[in-house]
Amino acid sequence: MRTLAVVGTGLIGTSVALAASRRGVTVFLSDRDPVSARTAAALGAGLAEEPVAPVDLAVLAVPPSAVGTVLAAAQRRSLARVYTDVASVKSVPVRMALRQAPDPSRFVGGHPLAGRERSGPLAARADLFLGRPWALTPAACTSDAALGTARELVELCGAVPVVTRSRDHDDAVALTSHVPHLVASLMAARLREGPDGMSRFAGQGLRDVTRIAHGDSGLWGDILQANAASIAGVVRDLHADLSRLVTALDLLAAPDGSEPERAERARGMRTMVDLLDRGIAGLAQLPATCGDVADARVRVAVGGRPGELRRLLDAAAEFVVAPEETVVVQAADAWGGGADGGLVVRFPLPSDLAECLTAGLRAGGWAAECEQGAERGYSAARTAGSE
Amino acid sequence: MRTLAVVGTGLIGTSVALAASRRGVTVFLSDRDPVSARTAAALGAGLAEEPVAPVDLAVLAVPPSAVGTVLAAAQRRSLARVYTDVASVKSVPVRMALRQAPDPSRFVGGHPLAGRERSGPLAARADLFLGRPWALTPAACTSDAALGTARELVELCGAVPVVTRSRDHDDAVALTSHVPHLVASLMAARLREGPDGMSRFAGQGLRDVTRIAHGDSGLWGDILQANAASIAGVVRDLHADLSRLVTALDLLAAPDGSEPERAERARGMRTMVDLLDRGIAGLAQLPATCGDVADARVRVAVGGRPGELRRLLDAAAEFVVAPEETVVVQAADAWGGGADGGLVVRFPLPSDLAECLTAGLRAGGWAAECEQGAERGYSAARTAGSE
Repeated sequence: MRTLAVVGTGLIGTSVALAASRRGVTVFLSDRDPVSARTAAALGAGLAEEPVAPVDLAVLAVPPSAVGTVLAAAQRRSLARVYTDVASVKSVPVRMALRQAPDPSRFVGGHPLAGRERSGPLAARADLFLGRPWALTPAACTSDAALGTARELVELCGAVPVVTRSRDHDDAVALTSHVPHLVASLMAARLREGPDGMSRFAGQGLRDVTRIAHGDSGLWGDILQANAASIAGVVRDLHADLSRLVTALDLLAAPDGSEPERAERARGMRTMVDLLDRGIAGLAQLPATCGDVADARVRVAVGGRPGELRRLLDAAAEFVVAPEETVVVQAADAWGGGADGGLVVRFPLPSDLAECLTAGLRAGGWAAECEQGAERGYSAARTAGSE
Repeated sequence: MRTLAVVGTGLIGTSVALAASRRGVTVFLSDRDPVSARTAAALGAGLAEEPVAPVDLAVLAVPPSAVGTVLAAAQRRSLARVYTDVASVKSVPVRMALRQAPDPSRFVGGHPLAGRERSGPLAARADLFLGRPWALTPAACTSDAALGTARELVELCGAVPVVTRSRDHDDAVALTSHVPHLVASLMAARLREGPDGMSRFAGQGLRDVTRIAHGDSGLWGDILQANAASIAGVVRDLHADLSRLVTALDLLAAPDGSEPERAERARGMRTMVDLLDRGIAGLAQLPATCGDVADARVRVAVGGRPGELRRLLDAAAEFVVAPEETVVVQAADAWGGGADGGLVVRFPLPSDLAECLTAGLRAGGWAAECEQGAERGYSAARTAGSE
């Protein structure tokens, strides 16, 4: 790829342009707002002018509802040999694009899974897509050449191409992106009606839950509208859960003098704890940030002296990252051994790290043993220890 | 304060004990689970034994529903002269405590607004409360001495005491902590039912929205039950918003061939954008992480050369932190001056930083001017520039 046109110099378009410019591609920038294109050019993203001949690829970085019209106009003036978009919804915009385009075979839908809270060219970064998935959704009529060129751009930006069907993509992002945005907005909207002095008690948890409610409501309205069918399914299930929660909270808020009242409260409590447990189970669906499997553990005996465990954890931290996350502490006597009041500490770790930690701790004078092997034996030991 | 008893050596109890131990206080640790108390002691949080004489203060770091019973038992064995708790709900636990305690005047309700996703003594940190608010909710019968001793502990931990009524505290944390937890759980629970391959598309936004759904469902059930009345009010409003959203999504997902269908879609869109806008307005209720008022701005003219804006932003970054967050770029010709294709960049900043940045940029050869004064003139300039 030697030439690229970017139509729409917002966060995503300008970031694509910066990444391509860095790799030596000549980039032509345009935007409905000429100041935005000039800003992107002044940031080093390319030239704020029209190419004199068709470029290798045009990236249409415009809202979902504009993709069809912008594609048709670009093809009519022969802007590029191949076209792709970056809209975060695929089914409806791709259908519109294929319907309106003079040559639908030269278009392939795309969606880089990357973003920031801030929008506009000033927020753009050449490394925005590094290591991120970038969905490509070719239609039946898409030419191999078009898909190949789009894939080349994805790799140029350091992203990971994920070829998928539009419908599957839209169902997935409804759950991972669009409904979370709505949930953050629903929560944030409640804050307007909070009691005086409420904000003193706001902590990081509230900030995290509501963070993504920032963002252009016009653009987000466009995105949500384009994926309304997929989103509606998830929101309907959410609504059913919330209805059950309202009932449960009413049962819990009621007085509990009599036996039937206590039974009702217990029912409300079960509904609520069930929701909390399903939430924890849902989190397990997210890929772990660290993908290593702990198939071994380091066992260390610790006496009862004040601060001895702190010293062990500090010593371990020199060899492995954040072992406190998964460390298990048990009474030494649960195994019938060890000094009275002593503790046994276990660090679940991948095998190689476990061996490294064992050697390191032993060199420091700790009574460390490396236990390799199946998780089953480990579970049995935990059960024994927690009695 | 010279002696402290901590009953319950989980995350909060052990963190209080670590903070007090560091300040030279003798701390006595106990827990229903003796291994937990021994673990806290081995971390350097204090002694895992009962005091021989009443201590100055006992911190009851137990779940909300246990505060009353644990307080009564502690007072009967004269554990301390003054008692406080750390439950994140105040009305119900304090009422139970005052009802069951042999001497209610010696008890004052407390709640440090600090936490981590992880629980248990291993997650404890001496600096957990630094700069965080710590609510104290004295009742009519609370002695001045009890409130004074509790306040001393708060300051010892580096936290900020906030004396407030139980009811006001509970209404505030329902909104800032309890409902956000439920919202995170509701969203996370949906992930169990996602399509195959969904997790490839999970990004930081989803992780942030659902992060606090981690956490012990038993303890959280206890907390939510104790504050059910306040939570129910907020959740009911959330439910009403969500019902409107379901209707709006159904309208948006329907076909829009005819004129009445288009009108319905427009209605759905307005409902959704209204929700998004209310979310953005709600976020404004949260205190800004940086409290400085931008009462001045630095104005810099930039030519049309590629990358020149990038060089300006890099130069500015040497003098002020993250100026890109608020930078405004406009066309130079909107003021009738400047080179054709040139831009004017404005950095809104507190007055002293603006002067510092102006001097620094001028020294680097940039055409920078510092504009002091009221925001009104600035708004007028923005309006002119955006035409």
